[in-house]
Amino acid sequence: MQDVAQLAGVSVKTVSNVVNGYPYIRPATRARVEEAIVELGYRLNVSARNLRQGRTGMIGLAVPELSQPYFAELADLVIQAGEDAGVTVLIEQTGAQRVRELEVLHGERRQMTDGLIFSPLALGEEDRTEFAVHYPLVLLGERIFRGPADHVTMANVEAAYAATRRLIELGRRRIAVIGAHPGETVGSAGLRVVGYERALTEAGLPLDPALMGPVVAWHRSTGADAMERLLAAGTPIDAVFALNDAMALGALRALSARGVRVPQDVAVIGFDDVDDARYSSPSLSTVAPGRLQIARTAVELLMARIADPAPGRPFVEVVADFEIIERESTGSAVAAST
Amino acid sequence: MQDVAQLAGVSVKTVSNVVNGYPYIRPATRARVEEAIVELGYRLNVSARNLRQGRTGMIGLAVPELSQPYFAELADLVIQAGEDAGVTVLIEQTGAQRVRELEVLHGERRQMTDGLIFSPLALGEEDRTEFAVHYPLVLLGERIFRGPADHVTMANVEAAYAATRRLIELGRRRIAVIGAHPGETVGSAGLRVVGYERALTEAGLPLDPALMGPVVAWHRSTGADAMERLLAAGTPIDAVFALNDAMALGALRALSARGVRVPQDVAVIGFDDVDDARYSSPSLSTVAPGRLQIARTAVELLMARIADPAPGRPFVEVVADFEIIERESTGSAVAAST
Repeated sequence: MQDVAQLAGVSVKTVSNVVNGYPYIRPATRARVEEAIVELGYRLNVSARNLRQGRTGMIGLAVPELSQPYFAELADLVIQAGEDAGVTVLIEQTGAQRVRELEVLHGERRQMTDGLIFSPLALGEEDRTEFAVHYPLVLLGERIFRGPADHVTMANVEAAYAATRRLIELGRRRIAVIGAHPGETVGSAGLRVVGYERALTEAGLPLDPALMGPVVAWHRSTGADAMERLLAAGTPIDAVFALNDAMALGALRALSARGVRVPQDVAVIGFDDVDDARYSSPSLSTVAPGRLQIARTAVELLMARIADPAPGRPFVEVVADFEIIERESTGSAVAAST
Repeated sequence: MQDVAQLAGVSVKTVSNVVNGYPYIRPATRARVEEAIVELGYRLNVSARNLRQGRTGMIGLAVPELSQPYFAELADLVIQAGEDAGVTVLIEQTGAQRVRELEVLHGERRQMTDGLIFSPLALGEEDRTEFAVHYPLVLLGERIFRGPADHVTMANVEAAYAATRRLIELGRRRIAVIGAHPGETVGSAGLRVVGYERALTEAGLPLDPALMGPVVAWHRSTGADAMERLLAAGTPIDAVFALNDAMALGALRALSARGVRVPQDVAVIGFDDVDDARYSSPSLSTVAPGRLQIARTAVELLMARIADPAPGRPFVEVVADFEIIERESTGSAVAAST
């Protein structure tokens, strides 16, 4: 701090004020101090500590697609949680390709980070040995359960059940599901369809294949296409559960383009609670899957493994809390709610 | 290839088929080959070549915010362009904080990448010496022009002029602008307001301060707030030019919540052409700023600098081509267009 103060030509107290985010500092002074801090590589002694401990001060976050709002917003939260924990987060995108997911796990770049938070989409249960790596690893998502790593996941079945049940409580009986992967019982699609079917069965409603909108990649465009196919097929539908918000927003668009009123004719609920969901017209009801909790827990678990990498500590599985967010698309919120 | 074939227990021809994306291969065979490839660190000899040339095979991309759809979609395109060029892209988020932007430029992690594509938001003209670095660097954005690095930017003034002019051609006279940074003549906000004002002046329309919706951070929420303030102030408005799509989507929401019809009462145009713009109701007219061209050009320029790092080669400034995309929010597109 004294070196920084000397270089910036200010008092140690001023340096301390800048570092601690004290508000009343002249912008020019703040800039001088900040530049001196960088120049001296002060950075709260993080670098020196990392060097002593053989660390890089960086962690990796590997996700399938940043153009998916869910992953972009998750990355943002992981970066913030990393910053709070004193580490820089480097983001890697796999495109859900198997080779690139294997490279994320085993490639050279793992030598550059102290640990990895990884949301796989191509690798699954049959690849569990791939995840037995020699560095701290936290898994996200629904591809591997009780694998050889700490794991943060969502209550997929329960949340999908709650979303579908809410539609049933609102009097809907012909509830389509968009985003199903027919035949799959694992992964986000499989688990969420299990919850959907459980709610229908419990309510004595039939599982009608005509209500299934299969979609491979979960984008706005594919959601719109699936909705258009369902409408074109003429199957009576009074509600839609889209397995993510991107598809739900695409479905809203397809319904609006056809003049179908939401929620009067068809109620729509999504999954993810991405930022867009609050600003669509009508605003989108959805499942908030505990994204902030997922990001913070993942970073906490990883930092704990980095601090104590001794093998033998049992792996932890954390299931985030979810919440049903009701907005205009299910007709159950105040009209002007944003 | 022979080692891969041996390890996977398949022919060299089969390895070649997998590597070249040949479709008719049994999934199990493909998986075996892919795992063998990763295990042997084959990766098309990229690693070995990098090692010989003292390279890491990785480039950095530093952007302000991944939760901004514009930057998330840009990152996705840069990653794809990097993949085509045989390099992995590591993403860094600065949060538009000055200290973190300086660290992106001068921090230790620059030793881990062969070059950097950087979209600064806090650093500007007064910091141009900071950008005179000793590694390949390509700048994006509107903060530094003719700086000590290659630069890919947008035609901000011209594109904003064209967007505003289109609203005038459609008969609009009271055109509000959302996202202005009053007093700034640089950066995206400053340059786009220059284009907006030029179009108004040329058409003989007054520059009315009551039409200015100042917004610091360009998000959906701040766009909705600015629109609400403009509506609450009672200023007559028949069009809105939002300086990015996120704010435009927020403004659409605020207009819809107040029962203002778009485009009948108020036409809206944004800037960025993010994916959401096609799926809102009404769909959003916008400026497509050449994002794909920006991503590809940035990677090409960077790879050229990496291949030939000799100093003295003059720096290049590329201005991407833009296009006005007309959708429902300006009333000039077919109703069901997605």
